[in-house]
Amino acid sequence: MSRPLALVAGAGGVLGGSLARQFSGSGYEVVGLRRADCDLADGDAVAQAIAALIERHGPVDTLLYNAGHLAVAPFLELEASALRECLEAGPVGAAHCARAVLPGMLAVGRGNLLFTGATASLRGSARFAAMATGKFALRGLVQSLAREFHPQGIHVAHVVLDGMLRGSVAASRYVAGEAPVMTPDGVAANFLWLAQQAPFAWTQELDLRTAWEKF
Amino acid sequence: MSRPLALVAGAGGVLGGSLARQFSGSGYEVVGLRRADCDLADGDAVAQAIAALIERHGPVDTLLYNAGHLAVAPFLELEASALRECLEAGPVGAAHCARAVLPGMLAVGRGNLLFTGATASLRGSARFAAMATGKFALRGLVQSLAREFHPQGIHVAHVVLDGMLRGSVAASRYVAGEAPVMTPDGVAANFLWLAQQAPFAWTQELDLRTAWEKF
Amino acid sequence: MSRPLALVAGAGGVLGGSLARQFSGSGYEVVGLRRADCDLADGDAVAQAIAALIERHGPVDTLLYNAGHLAVAPFLELEASALRECLEAGPVGAAHCARAVLPGMLAVGRGNLLFTGATASLRGSARFAAMATGKFALRGLVQSLAREFHPQGIHVAHVVLDGMLRGSVAASRYVAGEAPVMTPDGVAANFLWLAQQAPFAWTQELDLRTAWEKF
Amino acid sequence: MSRPLALVAGAGGVLGGSLARQFSGSGYEVVGLRRADCDLADGDAVAQAIAALIERHGPVDTLLYNAGHLAVAPFLELEASALRECLEAGPVGAAHCARAVLPGMLAVGRGNLLFTGATASLRGSARFAAMATGKFALRGLVQSLAREFHPQGIHVAHVVLDGMLRGSVAASRYVAGEAPVMTPDGVAANFLWLAQQAPFAWTQELDLRTAWEKF
Repeated sequence: MSRPLALVAGAGGVLGGSLARQFSGSGYEVVGLRRADCDLADGDAVAQAIAALIERHGPVDTLLYNAGHLAVAPFLELEASALRECLEAGPVGAAHCARAVLPGMLAVGRGNLLFTGATASLRGSARFAAMATGKFALRGLVQSLAREFHPQGIHVAHVVLDGMLRGSVAASRYVAGEAPVMTPDGVAANFLWLAQQAPFAWTQELDLRTAWEKF
Repeated sequence: MSRPLALVAGAGGVLGGSLARQFSGSGYEVVGLRRADCDLADGDAVAQAIAALIERHGPVDTLLYNAGHLAVAPFLELEASALRECLEAGPVGAAHCARAVLPGMLAVGRGNLLFTGATASLRGSARFAAMATGKFALRGLVQSLAREFHPQGIHVAHVVLDGMLRGSVAASRYVAGEAPVMTPDGVAANFLWLAQQAPFAWTQELDLRTAWEKF
Repeated sequence: MSRPLALVAGAGGVLGGSLARQFSGSGYEVVGLRRADCDLADGDAVAQAIAALIERHGPVDTLLYNAGHLAVAPFLELEASALRECLEAGPVGAAHCARAVLPGMLAVGRGNLLFTGATASLRGSARFAAMATGKFALRGLVQSLAREFHPQGIHVAHVVLDGMLRGSVAASRYVAGEAPVMTPDGVAANFLWLAQQAPFAWTQELDLRTAWEKF
Repeated sequence: MSRPLALVAGAGGVLGGSLARQFSGSGYEVVGLRRADCDLADGDAVAQAIAALIERHGPVDTLLYNAGHLAVAPFLELEASALRECLEAGPVGAAHCARAVLPGMLAVGRGNLLFTGATASLRGSARFAAMATGKFALRGLVQSLAREFHPQGIHVAHVVLDGMLRGSVAASRYVAGEAPVMTPDGVAANFLWLAQQAPFAWTQELDLRTAWEKF
């Protein structure tokens, strides 16, 4: 029997790597979609890239949408493109990917759409106006997809990373010294858990934190 | 003494009209920004239009950001432009307007940024993927602006209309018969209240509902 | 015409005083219920005390439930009675008061039930286990009352004070030097606003913060 | 090596049974605390019962707090004892159990405190005033415990069952015909997952729903 296909969008970072390894190690075939492969903000490009993947590997069982854009600055000093880039890496790219994989999932009545959120998905903050805009938007999209596609057998979940990842660009910029961070493998294991939850007891939103996160 | 200036962005609908009348009746000079005046998604156009208003009327005391886009359909049947239009009328236009009025407010250490939200600001729903994306995004932006600008004397608040407005386009499409709706004047009075709250007891988010709303 | 009656439960603190003055100054007859008058945890005592007030002053138009208990300590060091006292001053006393005033409100199809919450209504915190338990509980009660009694014409609202009150016992213990606090009069004005909102645009939960509150 | 000890409080229902089986099948020794064993509302009785269990079986590794009280009625028709029973089965019993197991966990710097919530933990509803009061209160307690004990190595999590369990008393009363319910085994598997999460990526609140839950 062929292995289920996991598609990692935003495969370039540390979490993308852990997700690929863990899903691969648990019986999935894993393919990645990187910025170099196609512009996530371009709906036609995403549709073509994913159609090509499906033609080669078969329908997607699990979408792991893990793209994001880092922009931290006082509101009046944000670069002109920051808000647009946060929206494109967030809800716009996510909607394009969901649209491309959903028909194949609906045809078999199963599948997983899993999206990576952040502290900024739940709370706005000074210096995080652009990121909170993008991450709130993604959460609103994911909740809407869950309500629409859960009854059709598609598990739609949002994973809120309320803290930083060891080895990430964000941690290298913003975490000082011995401050606690989450391990990418510890985080990735939870996406695998979500993909395997029993269908009559699905999680829609999962938060993950270090033991020291203030939340 | 000159009257404080209220700027209504998204002045065309029933709530825009009530806001203009009530602020005008309470001692404000009111100016409106309509789609015909400038494209809210175009940062340069918004900056120029608001600069022209400020040159003529003086600095803005209260921004009433009331624009929105209506798009209700199953996710896979949404028009290609629906998500973009919800984002442009939501966080993109709101950020452009905030950026244009904030310097004048910061110069005097006071002002109000008030934004109109909806049920879709708090919960995603089937058929509301585009609207929830735009409205969640606006809420994330507003929370971030509140955290950054409250300490500088600017009151930033989000008003969640958890129900439909009598006479609105949405009500004419989606409300049947005698179903309860909110009166635009009843709603607008709350924006005026927010603009007048004592500075050491500010509301960041205000919900408004008919007595029958399920919430 | 007789003046509407406002009943302040938990009338002893600084906010109780401001509420009494502001409602009195706006045309209400105001009566207070103090710990000395009756034990809020004793349903029969509350029922009798309020029945006596109603017999003398007529039915209650607006209940202002403002009681609370202060208990801040690490969980394993909380006094044995702390949790019980937070629950009694919170949801237990509130339910007893609501039960005593509701029949009179339902008879005329109008009235206001307004309850005072806190930061601990929205978020648990280390050292606040007892208070968060009581304040979360009160919020759950108030939401349920809102959903049940809004359609019958009773406005039920929860006011979240996300900060400390000038002159309060809590501020005298926990606020250092020039830290920002809310003025009791600034806060009380919002209860008056809630009691006067137009019936087709009611707020269910109102947050109040100083400009510097982190939220 | 001895097996870690799991203590199920509220062991009598369908979920208690599944939790016992699954933890037992995954290498835990499982003991149950039933209403017949001790009154959860009586702090001294709980302390003695758990001390006796610890003396016989060693320290508790994982507390599964699963007690609850079912009370559904219009607010003015609730039995006089309903609110008290919801609070006792909820936060009062939970605090007593947490207090009894925490010292042993702190001594070894690890352990899990897992608590069962419900839809009524997140939203009040008409006819659910007593249950929402108890379940909101439990959530406030659990959040506070998480913030206090996460940094000391204790994983504290709240599992929100947003739906009914197959075979439960609630389902037998309130679920008609073919309406979707969650399987107790599907739910219990998530408690096991929480007990095994990597320490630098802990979930504080997990929601579980059937595919058809409205949320």
